[in-house]
Amino acid sequence: MTHGPDDLGVAVIGTGKMGADHVRRIEETVSGARVTAVVDVDRGRAEAVASRIDGCAVHTDPAAAMASPDVDAVIVASPGPAHEGALMAAFAHDLPVLCEKPLTPDPAAALRVVEAECSLGRRRIQVGFMRRYDAEYARLKALPDTGRLGRPLLLHNRHRNVASPPGWTSAMLIEDSVSHEMDVTRWLLGHEITAVTVHTPTPSGDAPDGVRDPQFVVFETDGGAVVDVEIFVNCGFGYQVQAEVVCERGTARVGDGHALVTQTAGHWGGTIAQDYLERFADAYDREVQAWVDATRRGEVTGPSAWDGYAVAAVSAAGVRALTEGGRVPVELAERPALYGT
Amino acid sequence: MTHGPDDLGVAVIGTGKMGADHVRRIEETVSGARVTAVVDVDRGRAEAVASRIDGCAVHTDPAAAMASPDVDAVIVASPGPAHEGALMAAFAHDLPVLCEKPLTPDPAAALRVVEAECSLGRRRIQVGFMRRYDAEYARLKALPDTGRLGRPLLLHNRHRNVASPPGWTSAMLIEDSVSHEMDVTRWLLGHEITAVTVHTPTPSGDAPDGVRDPQFVVFETDGGAVVDVEIFVNCGFGYQVQAEVVCERGTARVGDGHALVTQTAGHWGGTIAQDYLERFADAYDREVQAWVDATRRGEVTGPSAWDGYAVAAVSAAGVRALTEGGRVPVELAERPALYGT
Amino acid sequence: MTHGPDDLGVAVIGTGKMGADHVRRIEETVSGARVTAVVDVDRGRAEAVASRIDGCAVHTDPAAAMASPDVDAVIVASPGPAHEGALMAAFAHDLPVLCEKPLTPDPAAALRVVEAECSLGRRRIQVGFMRRYDAEYARLKALPDTGRLGRPLLLHNRHRNVASPPGWTSAMLIEDSVSHEMDVTRWLLGHEITAVTVHTPTPSGDAPDGVRDPQFVVFETDGGAVVDVEIFVNCGFGYQVQAEVVCERGTARVGDGHALVTQTAGHWGGTIAQDYLERFADAYDREVQAWVDATRRGEVTGPSAWDGYAVAAVSAAGVRALTEGGRVPVELAERPALYGT
Amino acid sequence: MTHGPDDLGVAVIGTGKMGADHVRRIEETVSGARVTAVVDVDRGRAEAVASRIDGCAVHTDPAAAMASPDVDAVIVASPGPAHEGALMAAFAHDLPVLCEKPLTPDPAAALRVVEAECSLGRRRIQVGFMRRYDAEYARLKALPDTGRLGRPLLLHNRHRNVASPPGWTSAMLIEDSVSHEMDVTRWLLGHEITAVTVHTPTPSGDAPDGVRDPQFVVFETDGGAVVDVEIFVNCGFGYQVQAEVVCERGTARVGDGHALVTQTAGHWGGTIAQDYLERFADAYDREVQAWVDATRRGEVTGPSAWDGYAVAAVSAAGVRALTEGGRVPVELAERPALYGT
Repeated sequence: MTHGPDDLGVAVIGTGKMGADHVRRIEETVSGARVTAVVDVDRGRAEAVASRIDGCAVHTDPAAAMASPDVDAVIVASPGPAHEGALMAAFAHDLPVLCEKPLTPDPAAALRVVEAECSLGRRRIQVGFMRRYDAEYARLKALPDTGRLGRPLLLHNRHRNVASPPGWTSAMLIEDSVSHEMDVTRWLLGHEITAVTVHTPTPSGDAPDGVRDPQFVVFETDGGAVVDVEIFVNCGFGYQVQAEVVCERGTARVGDGHALVTQTAGHWGGTIAQDYLERFADAYDREVQAWVDATRRGEVTGPSAWDGYAVAAVSAAGVRALTEGGRVPVELAERPALYGT
Repeated sequence: MTHGPDDLGVAVIGTGKMGADHVRRIEETVSGARVTAVVDVDRGRAEAVASRIDGCAVHTDPAAAMASPDVDAVIVASPGPAHEGALMAAFAHDLPVLCEKPLTPDPAAALRVVEAECSLGRRRIQVGFMRRYDAEYARLKALPDTGRLGRPLLLHNRHRNVASPPGWTSAMLIEDSVSHEMDVTRWLLGHEITAVTVHTPTPSGDAPDGVRDPQFVVFETDGGAVVDVEIFVNCGFGYQVQAEVVCERGTARVGDGHALVTQTAGHWGGTIAQDYLERFADAYDREVQAWVDATRRGEVTGPSAWDGYAVAAVSAAGVRALTEGGRVPVELAERPALYGT
Repeated sequence: MTHGPDDLGVAVIGTGKMGADHVRRIEETVSGARVTAVVDVDRGRAEAVASRIDGCAVHTDPAAAMASPDVDAVIVASPGPAHEGALMAAFAHDLPVLCEKPLTPDPAAALRVVEAECSLGRRRIQVGFMRRYDAEYARLKALPDTGRLGRPLLLHNRHRNVASPPGWTSAMLIEDSVSHEMDVTRWLLGHEITAVTVHTPTPSGDAPDGVRDPQFVVFETDGGAVVDVEIFVNCGFGYQVQAEVVCERGTARVGDGHALVTQTAGHWGGTIAQDYLERFADAYDREVQAWVDATRRGEVTGPSAWDGYAVAAVSAAGVRALTEGGRVPVELAERPALYGT
Repeated sequence: MTHGPDDLGVAVIGTGKMGADHVRRIEETVSGARVTAVVDVDRGRAEAVASRIDGCAVHTDPAAAMASPDVDAVIVASPGPAHEGALMAAFAHDLPVLCEKPLTPDPAAALRVVEAECSLGRRRIQVGFMRRYDAEYARLKALPDTGRLGRPLLLHNRHRNVASPPGWTSAMLIEDSVSHEMDVTRWLLGHEITAVTVHTPTPSGDAPDGVRDPQFVVFETDGGAVVDVEIFVNCGFGYQVQAEVVCERGTARVGDGHALVTQTAGHWGGTIAQDYLERFADAYDREVQAWVDATRRGEVTGPSAWDGYAVAAVSAAGVRALTEGGRVPVELAERPALYGT
């Protein structure tokens, strides 16, 4: 699939699990962008990803990719320690960046990045804290702002993974996993975190040797809130993220199989959509994307004219049943071979 | 925003609520297509929609739009009685069509469309039964296929709207609303509907004068299933669609605020995601689309480098709390003006 | 366990599954009554039940039991065809009766019972439609009465059993199972049922040969409501009873794992208890009953003084942690042997 | 209502909210016991309670009540500081006691009680930790014992009240409220609590002046578990108690509107009852108790013989609809005046 000259040309740095997924996303799902370069220290891995895309360059050095006139913007999805260098190169080329978390693994490097961006005098970096874009978190964020529930006092979080990758350490539960809840705390409450306490139960028998899993982390904030996080990366049963904000006059939570559930004034519950364009927004998007994709492949899939005819015939019988009463049989024409059997 | 020469050029016929939404969808959300023409008998309405799109032609006659070399495919979103003409024109120009439901309002016209498509010898039409693309229905469809629950015996449906549009009649509850459940029945069960019975309670006091609302519709199918549909288009409280398949050894339902819930062998419940790319797939899509859109506007929004630094600083404190025990205060540098206050 | 002279002396007619359970209930759970006689055509079965109760007589003829001065009231739990005779005998002895459903299996006999009670000039019979005493149904009944939801229009019911007993017939699904929903319809809506339609899908492969299971039954009522009942007595996965009343401006349902859930004005949800005596009413009842039962057996069970001490010690540490900050260790005395290890 | 000579004669010490509720419970709900004495320093309050009970003595001194031959057992529901004296008196009279929590407010007094009971050489005291008798907690307790979920690692608790009584202090949140979770921790996990940390957010604006509400309490246990408790006694919206045990391979929780919900191996959900005696056990209990109570008052309430007849008539119509097909009207006899209109 090719793209137009005004599409945003994106270089993706790093073609591991996350980077490869971003390449796929831009090619198949995102409107208005294309991947014009991929970068990986493992050139073979980069080439495998690039081979599926027309006109996609391959580099092993981020700066080389950024020098190309085809690159308008950068996604950094390389390992954390490589981020600082890639970000400084992007600053040098004055390119906007979507940088996967962590910005950098250590605070000193992160502060250097901040200072460099301040020297530029304008923002170039968006950090990949993608929970802010999750529909459930977005509803949670929208709610306490209304003031109906009062000021937030406590924030309970659960964060569970089926199993940790090889080499995962006790510290990585904090740095790589709970870092999401650090961002959620700062974004959702609008507070800075002022102190941290970590409680560690006897590790699960399913945790790798020497890894303290699960952990129970407590934050204090400058807005006077207390935040707790259960992090459990070898829970075995699923990937699960839950959050409950406890406010002065009610709570709101997401992540337990429902959409947003609030509790206030003697009632618990959620909202009901008011319109089919709201309820089925994603279905319409998928329907039209599927039709565009099939049409570009020269195919027709999805519900057929025969399906449309069959429903028209049942509708006519239904209206007769409504107006005349009783049970009305449905008569269909013979199904043409074109529509299968 | 402009598009590439290989994008699919789409003519949208009808620029009412549904047609205008499809135009917006193709321009903002769908990858690989652009709107090259809009058609409406109300030329002013078509022009208002086209004015926001570079190089989008305006027509009052579908056939004129279809004659353009910029038009590769057609979306039909005009009123039902106009569908047959538009579809025949598309056949004449050999263009693929996504046709909003109903295919045509009456079975005889629908059968003429089917026969014309059969004369072409290949499928050109996809009908807009978009529930097949809804994530919940897709899971419901996937499940009974596994055979774990046995053969489907009953299918219970609820279909509720806040209020019906002006001019809605008793027959339109069947033709326009329950037609979705007719397609769901045929698609989900793979059965044809063989008979219809309609039960009508005393209408709600909130129904327009003379409109029988709600109705309770029962289908029989050639696969021996019984299907019931509550249709209630002036329920006042929300737009709601629910379905429960009752099989020989269990049930599965969607639409009551949870994702798919099954009941089998003494247990009720649902599944838990196994991976963050699965759980947060939509969030990643929205994140990258938002970043692309902002970048093309020359802006940077979303989580900032400062947010990345703050999380790195809290992470470092957290790791100290883990390794040294006790409560560890967090020290942040002063926040630069670039990142607001 | 013996009882006081003013306890109600109850004769239980029929000592099958239901009758034996009523005997156990009166002896162990109900306050103010005792079983003074049991009756069964199978004398051995009656004797086995009576042998566990002080001073409980055994009869094979209901009338003989009713003649005893120790019998103040009667529970009829014999097979349906035997009910008419037992009820007429109770009338003859002017005894109040709790009669398991059905009152009688056929309407003519039921009408004779009604006429005989009318001749007495006062009510003697309560029929065992126990769903009226279920906490969930009671909340469902309470709600529509408030008028907030408007007039009831539809009532959806599900009624599922794991497997039917041997000899269960297609007609028994109506007479023995759906009869509960007949009572629920009449009690909940306050309407009489005016017509019945039965839809039968192809039977489940797990239904006994020749039994039409499941069935889908539709009632019309003199209040203009339409009521549907799914009855499925070989569903395999559980015993399940659900009901949803659809009113003009909202719905209320019970039986899907939650307590009462309502939908109205854009929201779905339930209520939250306001008091611990409300939330834990059943726990207090069970606690005190358990203590009384153990005490009468000369035993002490349940939480011990040691448990009380341990909690007092933790409380004291907790108050120190609150007032002084930080982590406060808990010191317990050595646990005496009296309280186990 | 009078009772038999073998009923347990109970003295209730303290006739405040809790004591009066126990008196009502024993008289109306519990089988095999009666209240033979009430004790309160406020004699008038005790007399008001006793006046509704035949043969119930009134005392202001617990020991005087215990000296009566009519007193077989004691419930202590007086204020906490009075417990030690009442318990020692009960030991002196060798009477079994159900003692409301706290056993005593301070650990030293509690230890004296323990030592006194050990001197007796046998248990006399049950402490009123009634959550052990709650159906939901009982299911939670039953579950982890099975070993399917593995060893418990974390226990999350929520404990919320609408509003605290006048005079409630920050320490009472620990001593009076969280003491329930101390018992739940010890009973559910079978661990002793070894350390306590208390985190206090800025108090809610709805908390009384100077009261730190909510609080977030963390326990460590000798079994290596970490337990957290949100205590919030002025949350405004309801009385709510929730608990989630996080084990090595799954979690189980109660208190969020469902019955027990487990998460394990990719699934969340609960169990479905297998039998109507299980599902409707409480309804049967209430039905028979209501019938006994009405009968003893000389009344007949509940479903009538007319209700039984009406259902028999609808059943007969239903069976005809099943066997003959179509819609069958229901014909009822005229309703006799005895059954109202």
